[in-house]
Amino acid sequence: MSMRSDAISWSPKGSVRLLDQTLLPATVRHVEIDSIDGMVEAIQALTVRGAPLIGIAAAMGLAAAAGRRATTGDDGRRRPTAGEKRRRTAGVGDEGRLKGPEAGVTPEWIDDAIRRLASARPTAVNLRWALDRMRRAAEPCFRRGERGAVVAAELRAEAERIWDEDAAMCEAIGQFGQALVPAGATILTICNTGMLATGGIGTALGITRTAHEMGKGIDVIACETRPLGQGARLTMWELARLGIPGRLIVDAAAASLMASGEVDLVVTGADRIAANGDVANKVGTYALAVLARAHDLPFYVAAPVSTVDPATASGDGIPIEERAAREITTVPGVAAYNPAFDVTPAELVSAIITDRGVLRPPFAESLRRVVSDAAPQPA
Amino acid sequence: MSMRSDAISWSPKGSVRLLDQTLLPATVRHVEIDSIDGMVEAIQALTVRGAPLIGIAAAMGLAAAAGRRATTGDDGRRRPTAGEKRRRTAGVGDEGRLKGPEAGVTPEWIDDAIRRLASARPTAVNLRWALDRMRRAAEPCFRRGERGAVVAAELRAEAERIWDEDAAMCEAIGQFGQALVPAGATILTICNTGMLATGGIGTALGITRTAHEMGKGIDVIACETRPLGQGARLTMWELARLGIPGRLIVDAAAASLMASGEVDLVVTGADRIAANGDVANKVGTYALAVLARAHDLPFYVAAPVSTVDPATASGDGIPIEERAAREITTVPGVAAYNPAFDVTPAELVSAIITDRGVLRPPFAESLRRVVSDAAPQPA
Repeated sequence: MSMRSDAISWSPKGSVRLLDQTLLPATVRHVEIDSIDGMVEAIQALTVRGAPLIGIAAAMGLAAAAGRRATTGDDGRRRPTAGEKRRRTAGVGDEGRLKGPEAGVTPEWIDDAIRRLASARPTAVNLRWALDRMRRAAEPCFRRGERGAVVAAELRAEAERIWDEDAAMCEAIGQFGQALVPAGATILTICNTGMLATGGIGTALGITRTAHEMGKGIDVIACETRPLGQGARLTMWELARLGIPGRLIVDAAAASLMASGEVDLVVTGADRIAANGDVANKVGTYALAVLARAHDLPFYVAAPVSTVDPATASGDGIPIEERAAREITTVPGVAAYNPAFDVTPAELVSAIITDRGVLRPPFAESLRRVVSDAAPQPA
Repeated sequence: MSMRSDAISWSPKGSVRLLDQTLLPATVRHVEIDSIDGMVEAIQALTVRGAPLIGIAAAMGLAAAAGRRATTGDDGRRRPTAGEKRRRTAGVGDEGRLKGPEAGVTPEWIDDAIRRLASARPTAVNLRWALDRMRRAAEPCFRRGERGAVVAAELRAEAERIWDEDAAMCEAIGQFGQALVPAGATILTICNTGMLATGGIGTALGITRTAHEMGKGIDVIACETRPLGQGARLTMWELARLGIPGRLIVDAAAASLMASGEVDLVVTGADRIAANGDVANKVGTYALAVLARAHDLPFYVAAPVSTVDPATASGDGIPIEERAAREITTVPGVAAYNPAFDVTPAELVSAIITDRGVLRPPFAESLRRVVSDAAPQPA
């Protein structure tokens, strides 16, 4: 079995145990979640982050909430206020607990839970992809009339499969990526794409880790990744844990390092890849792609096939999450524009490194091929 | 007289009063400095910053320290330790005060003071330029045998002239820049180039302010400017004070705003302009220049002629200050590369807006012309 990320696990009680990434590197603390609301909040607050990992976390959160609901009839949803209670008409028992026929792990409950989880962060597609899988996994149980522990068990099993498969995809990405990483290379990256972002060793950082463990003598330049410092806080922490030589820079210093010949290649992750190969990823990725082109450096994107969204024709169709101004402002009351992601057009991408191999342009074709290979087969 | 910056002033006692820029915008506090060591420390700590303003501050600091020395024989230099005292051989009286003939405002004292001030920050050339002027201003006094209050008075008068001239240069830059700023334009800028960076209304931000006051209906996108946040803290503070509409972004978001057509032009300041037109400025400027070119946007540099260094042939010859890793690291002990500046090659610069007019490529020629016009004439 492939190495699993230790950023997520099950608690003995069946809750989801998350390493709180907002506190790293200063504090290593875990939170336990067994409700849909709790997982939505954790995803929005970036307690858990990274496109593949939030897909896994949402799937595990759905399974945990279903398990709790199957056992207690309580799904941990925020209790309605008195006013809300008055407005509600059916299915709410005393203390706001959903009891009786409506209390089960029903198709309606799952659809509502999935809707809430999927809207927690709009840009990454793995979240929606993982939740679609969960819905499909529950379907045979529903057809047999199950509305309780059996459905919850199947959801947990499917979440496990998603997690394991992601770990295996990371391993495959790490291996396929080696064809593009020369010995002694200096790899520039942004955000965090390691064990804190996936169910396994990571995507872009997994390639780096694999190269390091193969003795290639690579080193890393990590962009700090404002405003939330996933590079400064998380990637540098992972590199230090793994003993991989790395240097931290401010995002704006990447250009001069490229100009002085200190960068050999750029490798980033992806939150969503459109059908034409346009890539949505952490804000700043597009700048790196333009700069890489201007300095004749290869720009690679590493992502599992679950990141590809065949339903989105191009980057124009990818919703870009805007986060709160207060994440970046220091002068009270001033205006700010704080997009979490940007879109890199396919023509700036040298290759996309997936778990199905290294894809080359034209991506519309190479992506279509791997996505249809990966599509779920009729049971 | 042109509007002077309020980031610097004389105290009633003749000290230099600096608005402490490290504390803005949360706290408006001033520090008073009347020693060379104190001014060196203030420049290194970025209590005072901005290429033109550190030139003025160093000149004023030299005048203040000379005034103190002329009056008390004490130049405020750190007292030597007992060990240092034993190693010193001459010119040190009781309490380490320089007394007797060596105690005056001598050519040797000035040369030593200038050497220390000039090395406080290596990249900006205005600092050295201003100190060279101070040295030349003292020369006639020295030739007449003056070693005290007369020299100090002349130094203060020269510092005043440098300050006033810089304020006038800012005004001229603001006016010349208007030819390049269309009505309704959105101007993207980095770092702070306003009253907190110069002796007047600023360079790039002075152009913006002038456009705003002319009713052009411009607005500003300010890059936050990591790691020290001169854009987030200082430019947004100045824009708010002036009522200029502005939005703050993380440095890495500039690219996607350019791609979505929200930027009309980029205007930055400069810390040093080489004879061929290569521009050293705040780290991230070079990235903006590459991105502007990729998006067919004009990239302008605004700076007084004192920023041009004819002795430096190209950007390769400009020393780039590297600052402490701790300014950017959050994981203890990890390596970082923290350059304060980068170099933008002349071919990416659309025009240089100086107090002598708008210069166009080839800059080797246009710069040579304005610099020789501006050279000090024989008295």
